[in-house]
Amino acid sequence: MVVELISVGTEILMGNIVNTNAAYLSEKCVQLGLSVYHEVTVGDNRQRLLDVIKTAAGRADILILGGGLGPTKDDLTKETLAEAFHKKLVTDEHTKERIQQYFKKKGNTSLIPENNWKQAEVIEGCQVLDNDNGTAPGLIVENDHGIKAILLPGPPNEMIPMFEKQVMPYLNKLCEYRIYSSMIKVCNIGESAVEMLLMDLIDAQSNPTIATYAKTGEVHIRISARTESKKEAESLMKPVITKIMRKLSGHIYTMDEKVTLEQCVVNLLKKYNLTLAAAESLTGGLFSARIVNVPGASEVLKGSFVTYTNKTKRKLLGVKKTTLVKHTAVSKETAEEMAKGVASELNADVAVSMTGIAGPDGGTEEQPVGLVYIACLAKGKVTVKKYQFQGERQKIRENAVVAALDLVRKCVINRYA
Amino acid sequence: MVVELISVGTEILMGNIVNTNAAYLSEKCVQLGLSVYHEVTVGDNRQRLLDVIKTAAGRADILILGGGLGPTKDDLTKETLAEAFHKKLVTDEHTKERIQQYFKKKGNTSLIPENNWKQAEVIEGCQVLDNDNGTAPGLIVENDHGIKAILLPGPPNEMIPMFEKQVMPYLNKLCEYRIYSSMIKVCNIGESAVEMLLMDLIDAQSNPTIATYAKTGEVHIRISARTESKKEAESLMKPVITKIMRKLSGHIYTMDEKVTLEQCVVNLLKKYNLTLAAAESLTGGLFSARIVNVPGASEVLKGSFVTYTNKTKRKLLGVKKTTLVKHTAVSKETAEEMAKGVASELNADVAVSMTGIAGPDGGTEEQPVGLVYIACLAKGKVTVKKYQFQGERQKIRENAVVAALDLVRKCVINRYA
Repeated sequence: MVVELISVGTEILMGNIVNTNAAYLSEKCVQLGLSVYHEVTVGDNRQRLLDVIKTAAGRADILILGGGLGPTKDDLTKETLAEAFHKKLVTDEHTKERIQQYFKKKGNTSLIPENNWKQAEVIEGCQVLDNDNGTAPGLIVENDHGIKAILLPGPPNEMIPMFEKQVMPYLNKLCEYRIYSSMIKVCNIGESAVEMLLMDLIDAQSNPTIATYAKTGEVHIRISARTESKKEAESLMKPVITKIMRKLSGHIYTMDEKVTLEQCVVNLLKKYNLTLAAAESLTGGLFSARIVNVPGASEVLKGSFVTYTNKTKRKLLGVKKTTLVKHTAVSKETAEEMAKGVASELNADVAVSMTGIAGPDGGTEEQPVGLVYIACLAKGKVTVKKYQFQGERQKIRENAVVAALDLVRKCVINRYA
Repeated sequence: MVVELISVGTEILMGNIVNTNAAYLSEKCVQLGLSVYHEVTVGDNRQRLLDVIKTAAGRADILILGGGLGPTKDDLTKETLAEAFHKKLVTDEHTKERIQQYFKKKGNTSLIPENNWKQAEVIEGCQVLDNDNGTAPGLIVENDHGIKAILLPGPPNEMIPMFEKQVMPYLNKLCEYRIYSSMIKVCNIGESAVEMLLMDLIDAQSNPTIATYAKTGEVHIRISARTESKKEAESLMKPVITKIMRKLSGHIYTMDEKVTLEQCVVNLLKKYNLTLAAAESLTGGLFSARIVNVPGASEVLKGSFVTYTNKTKRKLLGVKKTTLVKHTAVSKETAEEMAKGVASELNADVAVSMTGIAGPDGGTEEQPVGLVYIACLAKGKVTVKKYQFQGERQKIRENAVVAALDLVRKCVINRYA
């Protein structure tokens, strides 16, 4: 089945916002085994939207429209879709009640703006999708030719929960077969290297399929099988997953879709009842900020030092002057002393340090931009690794953080598991 | 003149990447006074791309196509556009030479893959746009009806410099009038508050126009005038800018398009020859990481402590136990002692501290999620501010960082200017 994504909103055409909804919905469609051939963005203009809907209805089975369900006059997705599908708008009492409850919960029933009642109007014969995080309901409606349209609110915090709770089960039922998928997340390896290693598997794929998603310093690999039962899917996927695991073993940090790399590290530290400390130079606090991303990180992170200068490396971490002079700040030796220093200063079980050259200036022939040393102390032993990252300042720093998270992960597993 | 943006790439339709190019190009088109009515994404499929090009050529004056200029068989934007415009492909000797030079610079001439020569093929009669950061050239070509197509490479690090250096001047010349614009960047105020304050100006706008771009904790306001001369534009914009400056005065941190908030803070500190130190609790290193974003930040940032727990607040910053017990870690008093502590520990001229509740847990009736105290010490005097941010964990932390940057900015200006 073919899906067409239609994003409605002049703010997208003006470049005021990046259309992350389209990427989210595209990925979900792939996951469901649906094909997306076109994604169209159109402004808040009745005639142009009408034309876009008609074109889409002529070449796709399912239209997913995002945005334009708000209470203002500019919001006309519902009205225009009704026109294209030759349907009327009718008041939905359930939604009216829900909107009332929504404002009540926010504590201001007396102040429901008159135009919010426009949002209780729905297309006749549609399925109403409740919005847990806003007033606009979603709608699912079908025209006389069996073409389906799914209307969703624009704000991601309203759209995503609605899609996951209500639209995914609906789409899943539509398909004759079901799609089951597994996720393998790897880090500290590039997308092209992953593709190279999996090339024979990717070339041979039919069912299950393999899709790779590149993130900074990470690649997420989704294996999807279309079958009638979960059991059948699992038996189809198992040999492929085994092969991928063999090829990427050291790089895999989780097979749980919802677990991030920082969460994986925090979970490991919690599991072995360990505390963490960090000494950051080129990363300037980014590593610690990633750890603090995980709710409850305070149980694990004792603290961190951002020691961007040689002086603070000496004062706070006790890095020796001779080390800095003899080996420079970007060296195996300095990284090691930084990790030892922060561990003893904060009395942490595990300590990690990052030092390197983020650029754009400061690179030399021996120490080019992108050179990074990362040290991890765990169970009294220090491991230091040397990296050479490519790209711009921000990219180099983000890659260094991923490498540091991965090194902590590996050291904890090696020494404590 | 009407522009249609066409993004070519199955990786976008699969959700593997977020289409940030579209947002970038949209914003630039607005800046140039061009209207974008449709943005279409289509996969690496000849027939579908051909249809999309034909539809676009029927409703727009200028087509901007991104992606599909690579060396592989999947890359067929050039071939398909040539077909739609009834043109032939010809070898461009200049591009052939440039590709050779490109590989030479990378140090591997002997290894130029055969399919790279495909990238030296261009559409007859086109204007070739050199690529400073890759092999694929960009092209500008016109069909018999005067419809123009601009073909750009997909990778942002190739597309953006090519657009700014070569495409913008081309588009500027096409317009009868020119667009001149000014930027006002404000922080620590929401987009709706900015719009409310500027509502009368926005409602009355015609030439110049006012467009607002919401960023986390910031709003960028672009004032654009379409005129024949720069002088005329300046005299049209001046009264509007003056009015905006009056309405938003305290929030404006720069009027320079290229200056970020962290850069503004670093510049101010450099100007007065001041050093900075930070003590971060809920932000976990994000503040320092933003400062380190600025190349050369090491001249300014002495160092930072991430003191996520009460213990490290006491040990590293000397926050008193009685303060933590009596006022809790999220209080005016703790924020003040944190700032004083890090300033004296690192001997910095200016120190800033952040403490608060990022959630999702840990909130109470008196101390709800989103409550943040920020203290700034400058010239021996501490200013503490209380904030109540909305949204999720990450949003609250990012807003706290913006508020901290803004507080440092204001304190430095107030005490040293």
